[in-house]
Amino acid sequence: MKEIKHLTRLSDLTIDEILEILQVANRLANGETTCSLSGGVVANLFFEPSTRTQYSFLMAEQKLGLNTMDFSAQTSSVQKGETLYDTVKTFEAIGVDAVVIRHPQNNYFDELIGKIDIPILNGGDGSGNHPTQSLLDLLTIYQEYGRFEGLKIAIVGDIAHSRVAHTNIEVMTRLGMDVHLVAPAQFQEPGYDWEELDKVLEDMDIVMLLRVQHERHDGIMVLTKDEYHQKYGLTVEREKRMKEGAIIMHPAPFNRGVEIADEVVECNRSRIFKQMSNGVFIRMACLHRSLKNKKN
Amino acid sequence: MKEIKHLTRLSDLTIDEILEILQVANRLANGETTCSLSGGVVANLFFEPSTRTQYSFLMAEQKLGLNTMDFSAQTSSVQKGETLYDTVKTFEAIGVDAVVIRHPQNNYFDELIGKIDIPILNGGDGSGNHPTQSLLDLLTIYQEYGRFEGLKIAIVGDIAHSRVAHTNIEVMTRLGMDVHLVAPAQFQEPGYDWEELDKVLEDMDIVMLLRVQHERHDGIMVLTKDEYHQKYGLTVEREKRMKEGAIIMHPAPFNRGVEIADEVVECNRSRIFKQMSNGVFIRMACLHRSLKNKKN
Amino acid sequence: MKEIKHLTRLSDLTIDEILEILQVANRLANGETTCSLSGGVVANLFFEPSTRTQYSFLMAEQKLGLNTMDFSAQTSSVQKGETLYDTVKTFEAIGVDAVVIRHPQNNYFDELIGKIDIPILNGGDGSGNHPTQSLLDLLTIYQEYGRFEGLKIAIVGDIAHSRVAHTNIEVMTRLGMDVHLVAPAQFQEPGYDWEELDKVLEDMDIVMLLRVQHERHDGIMVLTKDEYHQKYGLTVEREKRMKEGAIIMHPAPFNRGVEIADEVVECNRSRIFKQMSNGVFIRMACLHRSLKNKKN
Repeated sequence: MKEIKHLTRLSDLTIDEILEILQVANRLANGETTCSLSGGVVANLFFEPSTRTQYSFLMAEQKLGLNTMDFSAQTSSVQKGETLYDTVKTFEAIGVDAVVIRHPQNNYFDELIGKIDIPILNGGDGSGNHPTQSLLDLLTIYQEYGRFEGLKIAIVGDIAHSRVAHTNIEVMTRLGMDVHLVAPAQFQEPGYDWEELDKVLEDMDIVMLLRVQHERHDGIMVLTKDEYHQKYGLTVEREKRMKEGAIIMHPAPFNRGVEIADEVVECNRSRIFKQMSNGVFIRMACLHRSLKNKKN
Repeated sequence: MKEIKHLTRLSDLTIDEILEILQVANRLANGETTCSLSGGVVANLFFEPSTRTQYSFLMAEQKLGLNTMDFSAQTSSVQKGETLYDTVKTFEAIGVDAVVIRHPQNNYFDELIGKIDIPILNGGDGSGNHPTQSLLDLLTIYQEYGRFEGLKIAIVGDIAHSRVAHTNIEVMTRLGMDVHLVAPAQFQEPGYDWEELDKVLEDMDIVMLLRVQHERHDGIMVLTKDEYHQKYGLTVEREKRMKEGAIIMHPAPFNRGVEIADEVVECNRSRIFKQMSNGVFIRMACLHRSLKNKKN
Repeated sequence: MKEIKHLTRLSDLTIDEILEILQVANRLANGETTCSLSGGVVANLFFEPSTRTQYSFLMAEQKLGLNTMDFSAQTSSVQKGETLYDTVKTFEAIGVDAVVIRHPQNNYFDELIGKIDIPILNGGDGSGNHPTQSLLDLLTIYQEYGRFEGLKIAIVGDIAHSRVAHTNIEVMTRLGMDVHLVAPAQFQEPGYDWEELDKVLEDMDIVMLLRVQHERHDGIMVLTKDEYHQKYGLTVEREKRMKEGAIIMHPAPFNRGVEIADEVVECNRSRIFKQMSNGVFIRMACLHRSLKNKKN
């Protein structure tokens, strides 16, 4: 029986599987290889707003020669109460070869796996997982340092609500990185050690900022934007104190002047737009992994 | 002068024309033929939410090598008061070869025919017609029984508001099928005979359920969902009483636990997802019929 | 260093540059040439509703063999507060070769030019510029008269709010056309001479109507629709008084019975749908101008 290569949680993949995706993506980034999945069709089901994930999946699909369907919850039968399972089953029935899904519910895919016969690529589930974002983060780090073991990273910001943080903490720890976490008290969660930004900053190889999700926190933010910037933001002053060669990352979208100073976004240390470029190669590699063995 | 092959009402087509579409679609379904309309462009104008019709038209268009434009009323000049006629005329002017339209107004196409020089394929008009849905229903029945004459079908549910029902009743009667109608009093309309589900159930070759359109009936439903399920739904118990080899159909989206029991949706008798797959082949055949003779 | 061929304000282009675009578009319209930009990718970022501009850009892109991404502000990270600059920078980072932008803010592109390394094609900015609309107007006039010098045009309607009018007044004057302006007092603006429709009408080679933008003027319109039609509209009676061979233009969408009589929209003099067809060729020529030298 054919095994279906979903990509839901990065924690389900072995280190070897992860490294293989990174290698394919890196060769694509270097122009050392090309992939084609010409003739296939992928449906992109985004139930939450997205720019980077949605359009870099689309770019990846187009580069692979795939046909695409962009599903909009607003103009679909979801308006008539159709469930996620029945929606995905419909796309399977009309002949789609894979689905990319972003959905606000954590682990939405648990109700689908085993009942859907096409690969599901997770484009983000609630505050749970964001595997392709973590993979593009890893590719960006690998391109910089050529290794993961022993690298020191600070992840700073709203960790409790961040699927990026949750996914990265698990996989980076597994890869032997030294992960430090910084967050305001309201964004901390049990089970981790919490540190102070100014105490760890100068020792880090990578500082990864997270977006303050104003749309989820309106009214409950204890700090003003300015206070957040002073206490937890990568200010111009803090950037200067980072160690030589250390880099800055952010999954974006970013709030200039809140978690990161306007001037820092495009400074020499910043890999923020490099991350976006890498996102296309990672998604090409993930789609290739899921679809290369599909029945023809 | 070139005749334009619209597809608006199935009642405008002769039996021979209908059978020809079914034959082409069936050969496509069996992989016995391929069609190409490469280089053409189709605009999909959906003024009502849709998943199956919209995306299976899109899949059909892509399989035929057509370029596509997905029109969204929300982000178009319809917001500035532009009429349907002027919108369609615009797409004709920019060089589109055919339009697929779903629109809430019954017979919206009457004001277009004769004034638009490209084929119009009706993706559903109000409670009036849904020709491609009926054609895919017919294909599904033909694949099962190899004939139409004498087959007994019960159509059950909100018949008054259902363009699927109206279209099917006309064409199935014309094809010699024995059509039985079951509906709560509020969903009945004059001019038909109404029967009881439990009196006809065991004699039917096909039971076709219709969706309870909650979004149209909020506040006027006399029955609760549970009462509806007990009186008019295909319950687990009723499914067991169906005759050997009889099949279940539903145009979807369906309300699990209302017009159909959750467990029955994917039971052996169900052709619901088969109907969706057939929708792609029917739409390919309809597009091919409308566009094969277009000027090159 | 590579010069980036933006298309933001028509006033930035020389007469020679404008004529070159018109020539390429005219050859495309006559089937005398073809262009291909196969393998490129264009993102269409529309922050305001559009039918003609949006879909004729899409048609132009498809005819050129470009891949396309249709960005929707509603389902993107713009919902999370992402700025226009960061949005465009994101599309650049994921590998898009050009962006088409329509945005409600006048001169939105001023903050982008010099910081974005891919061409920006302006699909309309607030009440400022609409270069591709003016170019398609010029192409339509050129096809009719074979020249611009000395032609008399009346532009009639809401000139103060019209980016089409502003762009046309500048370029048509530069091309030696004799431009006459007619508007109700509330739609006039300083710096122009204002005339009466019935005094200039019979002398014009071209009468160009502008749409009454009800969605911007609700509650402030001094005239009823009927009064507007009588005083400023191209009525059936006025059309009859136009000079032999004179033509009617309108950027659309139009309000039948307000700025133009229903019967006049498709009369022999009307070039309104011809303008739409020309829009595709103009946009092909503009995309070709911007992208033909892109690095491969």
